[in-house]
Amino acid sequence: MTEQAKSLSYRDAGVDIDAGARAVELMRGAVEKTHGPEVLAGVGAFGGLFDLGGIGEDKPVLVASADGVGTKSMIATQVGKLRGLGHDLVNHCVNDILVQGARPLFFLDYVASSKLAPEAVADVVTGCAEACAENGCALLGGETAEMPGVYRDGELDIVGTIVGVVSRETIIDGSRIRPGDAVIGLASDGLHTNGFSLARRALADADLGERMTDSRTLADHLLAPHRSYLRDIQLLLSGDDKRRGVDIKGLVHITGGGLIDNPPRVLPEGTAMWLVRNNWHVPEVFERIREAGNIALAEMDRVFNVGLGMLVIVPDRDAERALALLDRIDMAQSWAVGQITERGDGAPVVIS
Amino acid sequence: MTEQAKSLSYRDAGVDIDAGARAVELMRGAVEKTHGPEVLAGVGAFGGLFDLGGIGEDKPVLVASADGVGTKSMIATQVGKLRGLGHDLVNHCVNDILVQGARPLFFLDYVASSKLAPEAVADVVTGCAEACAENGCALLGGETAEMPGVYRDGELDIVGTIVGVVSRETIIDGSRIRPGDAVIGLASDGLHTNGFSLARRALADADLGERMTDSRTLADHLLAPHRSYLRDIQLLLSGDDKRRGVDIKGLVHITGGGLIDNPPRVLPEGTAMWLVRNNWHVPEVFERIREAGNIALAEMDRVFNVGLGMLVIVPDRDAERALALLDRIDMAQSWAVGQITERGDGAPVVIS
Repeated sequence: MTEQAKSLSYRDAGVDIDAGARAVELMRGAVEKTHGPEVLAGVGAFGGLFDLGGIGEDKPVLVASADGVGTKSMIATQVGKLRGLGHDLVNHCVNDILVQGARPLFFLDYVASSKLAPEAVADVVTGCAEACAENGCALLGGETAEMPGVYRDGELDIVGTIVGVVSRETIIDGSRIRPGDAVIGLASDGLHTNGFSLARRALADADLGERMTDSRTLADHLLAPHRSYLRDIQLLLSGDDKRRGVDIKGLVHITGGGLIDNPPRVLPEGTAMWLVRNNWHVPEVFERIREAGNIALAEMDRVFNVGLGMLVIVPDRDAERALALLDRIDMAQSWAVGQITERGDGAPVVIS
Repeated sequence: MTEQAKSLSYRDAGVDIDAGARAVELMRGAVEKTHGPEVLAGVGAFGGLFDLGGIGEDKPVLVASADGVGTKSMIATQVGKLRGLGHDLVNHCVNDILVQGARPLFFLDYVASSKLAPEAVADVVTGCAEACAENGCALLGGETAEMPGVYRDGELDIVGTIVGVVSRETIIDGSRIRPGDAVIGLASDGLHTNGFSLARRALADADLGERMTDSRTLADHLLAPHRSYLRDIQLLLSGDDKRRGVDIKGLVHITGGGLIDNPPRVLPEGTAMWLVRNNWHVPEVFERIREAGNIALAEMDRVFNVGLGMLVIVPDRDAERALALLDRIDMAQSWAVGQITERGDGAPVVIS
């Protein structure tokens, strides 16, 4: 060889350490705003430190969950609106531990793509930080990864892990659910973070800029962030100055598996859930997807939340008070959507 | 239209819910083996429940970290050896919180690809479960995601989040590090999980089946799992029946950023670290990468661990005892690799 081989660097190989550092600088402010005195070390440390000294719970049990946002990220990258994905991720995780009665303590994020765009990463993480602040939760740490060859160009994945706490005495686990209990449905803000692969396929020929009845675009409807039900459930448990709280026997976060596969995760043996479709409002975006893909109703129910983001199971006598407590502009719209029945030989969830 | 539009299902859109369920069944046994009595709910629950009642630490502080394995996954998928990635992920996370003095409590995983192969997911997660068991840590939860269009075909990403605990009084934070302190280096088991994009680029024309001097293949060397230093550090802290423990002032996990960017994360202002390259053994695989890519030594030091997976900073008087404690077949090979100096106008890390 007459020519000397080129000297390879990490940057030549597609990894830009400086871009990672720039992303950290862009999001540092938003992240640090989520840190109360209980956070002893955050950005830059190998691990984030969270002091348990200040938590009020007696007999504390930690509740943890990890999740992603699925291919909702593809629509977000397509229209260049990434911040909402951070809200999606945090709120999804908050709801996942909320169903066991936990309040969030801290959250960690992971953002990866083939090429690290500092502004995009900072946008996602800033969204996470905003949602963490709204949920009273610290954004304790995270990781960004540049993985040339693993992700398709322009795509990214984001993953979140949340840790919360509940007193051992107040864990909600569904074990006290009995036939005759009422099912209250809390409205979703759209698809949340589930069913996007089917939605994208069904809407492959649709114009994401198409105006829906409320004049918001189809993309806006699809990207509406996952709603956190933390404040709704806390209000139901605590009551307000006029009404005492309700006895929540079970909570069901409607995620992948939709209305069909999620309720059985909390229903005791021998019980089933009966939902009456006319009792709640199915948002237009679901109808749009169903028509575009000619999707069977049973498939819709198994893939999407079809308008119900959280189900609350309470004794029948508490149902009316639950609805009254939530009848405020800043709480989720709610309906009595069904009841718990004996299971018999039927399916665990029946929708009529 | 004479033909009715085909009815779309989630499976048509590339998402197979049943494959996810099969993966869970394949790995359930290995995961549940990591559950002691402190785990109140695991596989199948919305969130994993971990009872803090049994932890012994006074003034407990939680330490959390999230990480991935980078493009090491591409070599693993290429040669079809995925289980080691689970060990990589867990051990990387264990080390990240170990540097602050924490022992692991629980771990959550996330595995995603464009097409979900239940056996591949189960292999990765079983590796995680094995490593969790080795580190005395519960695999408390996880998520698998099928994301057609986001990942390149055949590639996957895995992400882990760990939560551990340390007593507030025994947090290791580097603040007591002073010039004159000794730096002990613990041997790595190869690249661990950093620098793979550069390594793959440098070795693009190499035969992964090539035999190295020890007759193991190049692929075996590249895929050697990240080592956990939990037992090494616990032994250093506790001592054995002949020697008392040592005063660990700081720990540095050598990850992305190599020997150059990691030490400054714990060095107090005004101090620097001086490492003497002849004092430790650089494994053959790093030489092979360096030669193949004609990579500058300074770039090697910034990207790879070049043989040192963990640095332990102790008072000079404790250095000999530290080396003696680790001089056992089941502990990491260790060397006195350098010392802490006054920083002056120089770089925070000097390697000579």
